[in-house]
Amino acid sequence: MEFKLTATESGSRARAGIISTGHGQIETPIFMPVGTTGSVKGIHARDLKEDIGAQIILGNTYHLYLRPGVSVLEAAGGLHKFNSWDGPILTDSGGYQVFSLGDIRKITEDGARFQSHIDGSYHLFSPEKVVDIQRSIGADIIMAFDECTPGDADFDYARKSLELTQRWLDRCFAQFDKTEPKYGYPQTLFPIVQGNTYPELRKQAAIHVKTFDADGYAIGGLSVGEPEEVMYEMTEVVNAELPENKPRYLMGVGNPVNILESIDRGVDMLDCVMPTRNGRNGMLFTSEGIINIRNKKWANDHSPIDENGASFVDRYSKAYLRHLIISNEMLGAQIASQHNLAFYLWLVRTARQKITEGNFKSWKSNMVEQLKIRL
Amino acid sequence: MEFKLTATESGSRARAGIISTGHGQIETPIFMPVGTTGSVKGIHARDLKEDIGAQIILGNTYHLYLRPGVSVLEAAGGLHKFNSWDGPILTDSGGYQVFSLGDIRKITEDGARFQSHIDGSYHLFSPEKVVDIQRSIGADIIMAFDECTPGDADFDYARKSLELTQRWLDRCFAQFDKTEPKYGYPQTLFPIVQGNTYPELRKQAAIHVKTFDADGYAIGGLSVGEPEEVMYEMTEVVNAELPENKPRYLMGVGNPVNILESIDRGVDMLDCVMPTRNGRNGMLFTSEGIINIRNKKWANDHSPIDENGASFVDRYSKAYLRHLIISNEMLGAQIASQHNLAFYLWLVRTARQKITEGNFKSWKSNMVEQLKIRL
Repeated sequence: MEFKLTATESGSRARAGIISTGHGQIETPIFMPVGTTGSVKGIHARDLKEDIGAQIILGNTYHLYLRPGVSVLEAAGGLHKFNSWDGPILTDSGGYQVFSLGDIRKITEDGARFQSHIDGSYHLFSPEKVVDIQRSIGADIIMAFDECTPGDADFDYARKSLELTQRWLDRCFAQFDKTEPKYGYPQTLFPIVQGNTYPELRKQAAIHVKTFDADGYAIGGLSVGEPEEVMYEMTEVVNAELPENKPRYLMGVGNPVNILESIDRGVDMLDCVMPTRNGRNGMLFTSEGIINIRNKKWANDHSPIDENGASFVDRYSKAYLRHLIISNEMLGAQIASQHNLAFYLWLVRTARQKITEGNFKSWKSNMVEQLKIRL
Repeated sequence: MEFKLTATESGSRARAGIISTGHGQIETPIFMPVGTTGSVKGIHARDLKEDIGAQIILGNTYHLYLRPGVSVLEAAGGLHKFNSWDGPILTDSGGYQVFSLGDIRKITEDGARFQSHIDGSYHLFSPEKVVDIQRSIGADIIMAFDECTPGDADFDYARKSLELTQRWLDRCFAQFDKTEPKYGYPQTLFPIVQGNTYPELRKQAAIHVKTFDADGYAIGGLSVGEPEEVMYEMTEVVNAELPENKPRYLMGVGNPVNILESIDRGVDMLDCVMPTRNGRNGMLFTSEGIINIRNKKWANDHSPIDENGASFVDRYSKAYLRHLIISNEMLGAQIASQHNLAFYLWLVRTARQKITEGNFKSWKSNMVEQLKIRL
């Protein structure tokens, strides 16, 4: 995997670049739609590519391991063949999902023992196993297995957890280095910077991951309950240490304002379930502000969902979409999800263009205010 | 509305024709996807037209009246503008839906009083009101308000009910004749032939509706629990009476075999929720037979859903679709619904071609056997 910086802007840490993978190029900064179980909820692979303009999508190791399972994915020839998405895929390592399981998981030096949310069966994720699974999934970008701490963890827990994550990282790279890609295209492994909300831990973690000279680095364990300002501060602390010539991936972030603020702080890649999850609930993000389409005020508004919208679904009317969402019609969730994803991709595409033109900072300031408006 | 017969076949009552409406032509025999609340579940208007090849869709007066309501549809400029489907629309009159409400409806000479399934509010559907609502919806084809009797109704009930339906038909035409289309294109009113499973009532009903010299005629109250052979027999009795030069619409029918058997008996138009409803549950209709995609046997079958399939969704693999359906992923329901609708439209398109070529009967005999196979 290669990363080429193509533009930076003075007065901002924002960068534009190009990542080259075995499944094509990714123009950064980029937002990555989340396909938890191999499908971006409600969206055909064709529309992801042609309508939304997605360049890379996520899969989740935890979910894909449980269902359909590694043997099915291997028989398919990897996730790309399985789900018909032929662009780059990044897989989350499962650390965050296991963390979310709460009472039904136990973390030891060896790894994380957990119960399936589907059938209660017991499983162990170790750093080695998680690398092996992602080899089998065929992710272009494999994430290291880490422990994600809760937003309110105390310093001592956060420090010990980080040390565990660091020992696991050694094991991830050892396993990665002694195994090969299975489907004839290259795979790469991104370490994850943890350290909770403690700047010294975050800094130490960033310095540690650099020693692996990876193709890219992720910032994990944020957007899990801490204030936004703390998330931005941690991102700044980490990005100050991470090398300039490698992409930086801020995991699980966020709303459109978070996206722009993170890009401004030197983040190149982001993912979040928000565009699809909030879409299914009737929340639309637009360049004019936020629409709660369930609101009575849209019941008789027959104007397009988004006059400036990038997707074909934006030609449907607000009144129609409201009717579908209120009526629990599946098509409502589809339209809102597709609109939101197309908007997110428009947002990062435009951010990239503004960085290239050298006026990202001023555009961002205006856009951030606009994005907060409730229409 | 005009109907032109373009082909018939000796040895069969099957016909090919063209219906001309204010929203374009319909090549018959045709299957009409059901958009109960204005949306064909899970399917974008664009895909209905371009991928599935739908030529006319259904809306339901009962559902659209309750939600979004007539005032919203009028403000939109009719259902076509509201749901972005610019082809012909036929609206069911609500008679069948009200019949399905069971205990929460009461039928009198005036009409049907019922409670909304949404909020329990009381409403009265009269023949006049139902015509007015369909005027407001803007259906190209308006259906008469009728009483649909249960499959096991005794002769006396069926006879009295038919007489009520016939009196209501007078009132429907009276209201239709003294009102105008609202959106600048023509609308037409189809009577519905009732009479339960009693040949003499069906015959009498068919003779009665002819007196209105309508643009087309529907056969209602079938596929509500009676044996298939009885349904076919009733269709034959009615079609023997209905004029040759008008389209015949068999309401709410059916599975692919029913479709072909009905076409063979002179039916020109059909609708059913089966392709979408069964699709959501994982049942696929194909030219090779029926697939229950939930079956374990498909878990590792990475061949396309349907090698001969007409839709882009048929390129997804069986294993992937099974995974989505088993995982309750929305995309699974979308893919299966779109496949099934595309298959139904392929089926009637091919039937039409075979009628035109004069070999429908032999093709049908083979196809009917194939369609029954469980793969």
